[in-house]
Amino acid sequence: MRITINSGGPQALDEWRGHFRDFNPAIEVVGWDAARAHPAGIGYALVWAPEAGRLAALPDLKLVISAGAGVDGILADPLLPPTLPIARMITDSTATVMGDYVLTAALMLMRDVRAMALDQAERRWRTRDNPPALAQVRVGVMGLGQLGAHTAQRLAHVGFDVAGWSRSRAALPGVACFAGQEEFAPFLARTDILVCLLPGTDATRGILGARTFAQLPRGAGIINVGRGSHLVQADLLQALDAGQLKGAVLDVFDTEPLPVESPLWSHPGIVITPHCGATPDRRERARKAVDIIERWERGETLELIYDCQRGY
Amino acid sequence: MRITINSGGPQALDEWRGHFRDFNPAIEVVGWDAARAHPAGIGYALVWAPEAGRLAALPDLKLVISAGAGVDGILADPLLPPTLPIARMITDSTATVMGDYVLTAALMLMRDVRAMALDQAERRWRTRDNPPALAQVRVGVMGLGQLGAHTAQRLAHVGFDVAGWSRSRAALPGVACFAGQEEFAPFLARTDILVCLLPGTDATRGILGARTFAQLPRGAGIINVGRGSHLVQADLLQALDAGQLKGAVLDVFDTEPLPVESPLWSHPGIVITPHCGATPDRRERARKAVDIIERWERGETLELIYDCQRGY
Repeated sequence: MRITINSGGPQALDEWRGHFRDFNPAIEVVGWDAARAHPAGIGYALVWAPEAGRLAALPDLKLVISAGAGVDGILADPLLPPTLPIARMITDSTATVMGDYVLTAALMLMRDVRAMALDQAERRWRTRDNPPALAQVRVGVMGLGQLGAHTAQRLAHVGFDVAGWSRSRAALPGVACFAGQEEFAPFLARTDILVCLLPGTDATRGILGARTFAQLPRGAGIINVGRGSHLVQADLLQALDAGQLKGAVLDVFDTEPLPVESPLWSHPGIVITPHCGATPDRRERARKAVDIIERWERGETLELIYDCQRGY
Repeated sequence: MRITINSGGPQALDEWRGHFRDFNPAIEVVGWDAARAHPAGIGYALVWAPEAGRLAALPDLKLVISAGAGVDGILADPLLPPTLPIARMITDSTATVMGDYVLTAALMLMRDVRAMALDQAERRWRTRDNPPALAQVRVGVMGLGQLGAHTAQRLAHVGFDVAGWSRSRAALPGVACFAGQEEFAPFLARTDILVCLLPGTDATRGILGARTFAQLPRGAGIINVGRGSHLVQADLLQALDAGQLKGAVLDVFDTEPLPVESPLWSHPGIVITPHCGATPDRRERARKAVDIIERWERGETLELIYDCQRGY
């Protein structure tokens, strides 16, 4: 069996090879450039955002494995063969690390950490009101897939008042579950901190925009760990400046690294983190990819296969 | 019954009066200056750091009530009558708010939030390694009084690997309890994030100093929510610059507000917060003070009475 990998670039190839060898020495790792020269016999591709047409040029490709939870970087290829199955990857630690990232971000919003950091930069001592108790802070998680469901329950366990919103109704102990367009408004109306963990699809593009912000209680906070495309940056800046939103923690952006000229960097209400919400390491992803390939070879059903009807 | 109050200054007097009236209208609140003019009949004083000699000048004083958990501001008065009983005040929400402050600070240290904030100020995108899982992060809480015990258990509940250290051995479910000088070194050796919630006494002065830092694993973090006097500032700067410590979150200082010329403000490893770890509001403290006074009048034993043998 042969797999080609475009994740991490040529400099990561030796590391990937070592990990795959450890987990299944029968799987041969072929470099992304080498695969272009010798495409025959490559049954698997582990990719994040491959150049257009590159997957279509692999005649024996059976399964594409995303290097992360999302598949939007793969679907962006206009030459992608429409019947090619795509497996999404969520490793065991991804959900854990993501839940803890969102917990950290929610506590930072609650405690006004950005404002205190700006005070510190100006050597300014400004006392603050007590924060509310966690049970009085209503967090709303949009997207209740594997990451969203874990994150919502994590925050509930720590003591926040948590609701979730998803397309079809989920059932999560300790989390008030809203579903569908008709329950979006009541979900937003009870949300002090809005967390976006939706997949990146046409239906969710721009969901963090003026219409959504206007339906939140005044002074709400935003945490975006979904996709850069979920956020309408101009609407965020406007809502912050108008006081409708109090703060935002952003981990994902349309263009990464975030361009140096972006106004997001310097806004006093925005915390920027460098897409560190949850990036599993290569060893863990290699282990998961080997598991996916072995299941596929045995003809088993994969849990996280891309569904073009849902869009994720 | 009459009580005089020096907490919050003259501008807070009307607010205190309203709260005391709500909880027990038989208690008359006398301003701090008025008490100097007419000291007779004042049985109680609610104070934080009264000027030297002021308490001794109240002939009918039965009980001093500290406006906070500590009594060091009261003991600093060289003219304090040695037999005057002092009640410490920990309201119900103090422990909750403190636990959540320390949780926030520990997550921030784990996630390198200070370094990310400095990156943001420079518009610098620097990707980061995954943080360890919480269960791999060993937090050590020094001081297992009401605040320390709650905080240690709070962090354990969220998933950190928590130990506590106190003078006499405590027993806290889920927390490894170390006790006494002979167990201080092993406690430090297993601590990645050291939290100081000790009382401010002669025995604990300067405990956050070079000797302690040297016994922590290299790259440890510090959270000081005890007293400014616990920290040897020069030792902290030296340990950070040498890499022995990776970061510190400081909420309390020898002089507050922290003077504008302090080198702590600008150090890249230090997060400064303006003594906001846990300050219960006046209404909650008034409620607690009324409860203390009523118990004292009934001759009941108070739970948190200052013990000069222990020093807190």
